[in-house]
Amino acid sequence: MEKRYLFTPGPTPVPPEVLAAMAEPMVHHRGADFRAVYERALARLQDVFRTQSDVLLFAASGTGAMDSAAANLCAPGDRVAVVTAGAFGERWVAICDQYGLDVQRIAYQWGEVPLPDEVGAAVAESGANVVFCTHSETSTGVVADVQALKQAVGQATLVVDAISSLGAVPLETDAWAIDVVLSGSQKALMCPPGLAMAAIAEPLWERLPQARSFYFDWRRTRKAQQVFDAAFTPAVSLIRGLDVALGLIMEAGLDAAYERHVRLGRAARAGLKAMGLELFSPDDDSSAVVTVANVPDGVDGTELLRHLRDRHGVTLAPGQGNLKGKIFRIGHIGWFDVFDIAAALAAVELSLTELGAEIERGVAVPRAFEAFEELGLRG
Amino acid sequence: MEKRYLFTPGPTPVPPEVLAAMAEPMVHHRGADFRAVYERALARLQDVFRTQSDVLLFAASGTGAMDSAAANLCAPGDRVAVVTAGAFGERWVAICDQYGLDVQRIAYQWGEVPLPDEVGAAVAESGANVVFCTHSETSTGVVADVQALKQAVGQATLVVDAISSLGAVPLETDAWAIDVVLSGSQKALMCPPGLAMAAIAEPLWERLPQARSFYFDWRRTRKAQQVFDAAFTPAVSLIRGLDVALGLIMEAGLDAAYERHVRLGRAARAGLKAMGLELFSPDDDSSAVVTVANVPDGVDGTELLRHLRDRHGVTLAPGQGNLKGKIFRIGHIGWFDVFDIAAALAAVELSLTELGAEIERGVAVPRAFEAFEELGLRG
Repeated sequence: MEKRYLFTPGPTPVPPEVLAAMAEPMVHHRGADFRAVYERALARLQDVFRTQSDVLLFAASGTGAMDSAAANLCAPGDRVAVVTAGAFGERWVAICDQYGLDVQRIAYQWGEVPLPDEVGAAVAESGANVVFCTHSETSTGVVADVQALKQAVGQATLVVDAISSLGAVPLETDAWAIDVVLSGSQKALMCPPGLAMAAIAEPLWERLPQARSFYFDWRRTRKAQQVFDAAFTPAVSLIRGLDVALGLIMEAGLDAAYERHVRLGRAARAGLKAMGLELFSPDDDSSAVVTVANVPDGVDGTELLRHLRDRHGVTLAPGQGNLKGKIFRIGHIGWFDVFDIAAALAAVELSLTELGAEIERGVAVPRAFEAFEELGLRG
Repeated sequence: MEKRYLFTPGPTPVPPEVLAAMAEPMVHHRGADFRAVYERALARLQDVFRTQSDVLLFAASGTGAMDSAAANLCAPGDRVAVVTAGAFGERWVAICDQYGLDVQRIAYQWGEVPLPDEVGAAVAESGANVVFCTHSETSTGVVADVQALKQAVGQATLVVDAISSLGAVPLETDAWAIDVVLSGSQKALMCPPGLAMAAIAEPLWERLPQARSFYFDWRRTRKAQQVFDAAFTPAVSLIRGLDVALGLIMEAGLDAAYERHVRLGRAARAGLKAMGLELFSPDDDSSAVVTVANVPDGVDGTELLRHLRDRHGVTLAPGQGNLKGKIFRIGHIGWFDVFDIAAALAAVELSLTELGAEIERGVAVPRAFEAFEELGLRG
């Protein structure tokens, strides 16, 4: 009977319309009923990715899209650069290692923001032709400036993991000339996990080597999708959900989504600071995906998250890697509004108090509402 | 408003309990709520696969599991044997080609049943250490005797695509010492597409080369699953559905499922023959997954399927490859009972009549019921 609250940066809450679409009776993936849904979902993906290029859709976790990029863009021994500043940058390194690539790491501390000029210089020095980076580093709350990164790396192919950012923060695939943008269904796209996407800039197709994966072969999937078919049986019910979710997003418009995420970030930061906590994620409007705070002295972060979950039914995200136990993360991508932030802050405030931390009580939620009320985007 | 009827061998109809589970609110994949579901689903998969070994679960189409087998078992240039007798045997060849394997084809005509002695001799002659085969060749309705195939190939590693057979026809992974068994969610397991599975016999783990895929790396997924975690964000809602579906299957028992599929096959064959059609799939109890008939003279098979779908809302499966237009296929795996066979036969009878074919009317459905009533398994 206990009610559950999900405030994690993926999986994220799914709107009831999307859940209902997932529960519709099965249809055949080659019939007219599904083809209309598939065609519309693929077109809507282009809208959300802000691209005229094909967006490939795979039945896979988001990591499948990352795998596909290494498998389709690189031949064994290729020198590549990876920008790392958290757990998902490390995932790029692991993928590139597995494919036998010569990885040049451009490493930042977890929580640091990659500097485009530094990255550009390091890429030029390395001689890498492909650069893998992370738009929103979900493990730290840092959103990188991928427009500037693309300018800085020049002719090198820039591959952007936009799994937790797409639909939450601005990403202009075509206008910024980003070569490859990857995403997943279970973040700002408000769907369950199980779908991965890859937008590939048109000029890249001519110079792709032979793909090193059958399932994730971009050419095979593109060829099928161009006639609104799928290379293999697609995840019919998830795609129906995606179609509905993308419709909801585009109905309000991407600008509205971007502004809402900025304001949710402002509310989360203001509330956490008001109760006396220190932010780990940047204290500015770039921080619109996940808000991260240091666990206060005297409290064990693992214990805090367990208390929130087991005592109150509230799920936040823990720190990953070396940050385990030291930080906690409040996700606010996708189907979130300010009252979710209020509930999350109230739960943190209550739990920290119950665990004996000395924090300011009663101020976080009102401060969050004040911060949320400030409309528009700055700078 | 037109009602739809799905009689294809995948995707297959999904029971309402499973659809309802898919529509439950999202939960976090590392929380206790999901972990219980995940742990139970993995255990139930072992029951259905009839194995004590780990069954790996991927967010992917069934082809993803096939890809994973080539990527985990073989190094570039390895000599492998592929038994082909239809579209899914050809898929094995395409996968092995993409991974640069030295493919020795053991080729049968589409619709032929692979002969274990011949296959054994061909494998021995080829020197291949890995043999890829298809349990139920969904394109032709032929179910191969994989127990005898394993005996025939001896020490070679036998990889069985059981995507459309698992849960419909007997497959004793451990008792028959089959090395690798692969399946997917959208066939007899009564779920939507989007989950792929691989059961790997224990002794294989020691001799696996470095995996040539990151996403489908068996070692990475096994390591995570052993602590009831997933290597990457799992397809939470599909796994909830799978857990419910496997519960339904195991509640009635696998033997009941096998017998029901045999009897559904008998009903479909008896009905088609009664209306004067010629079977393409074998006319015996091995034929329990999909029943295939030749399109009668003077009728275009593509036209027949379009008529069934657009005029009557009934989806059957067409012929693939060279059989396109020449055959049609009635799937009866998973959530099927004899009244579905009756509806499918009635729709075929009506549509063929409307298209001007001379067939016997009014006898197919009663004959199907008679054939279905014969209980038990022969031989």
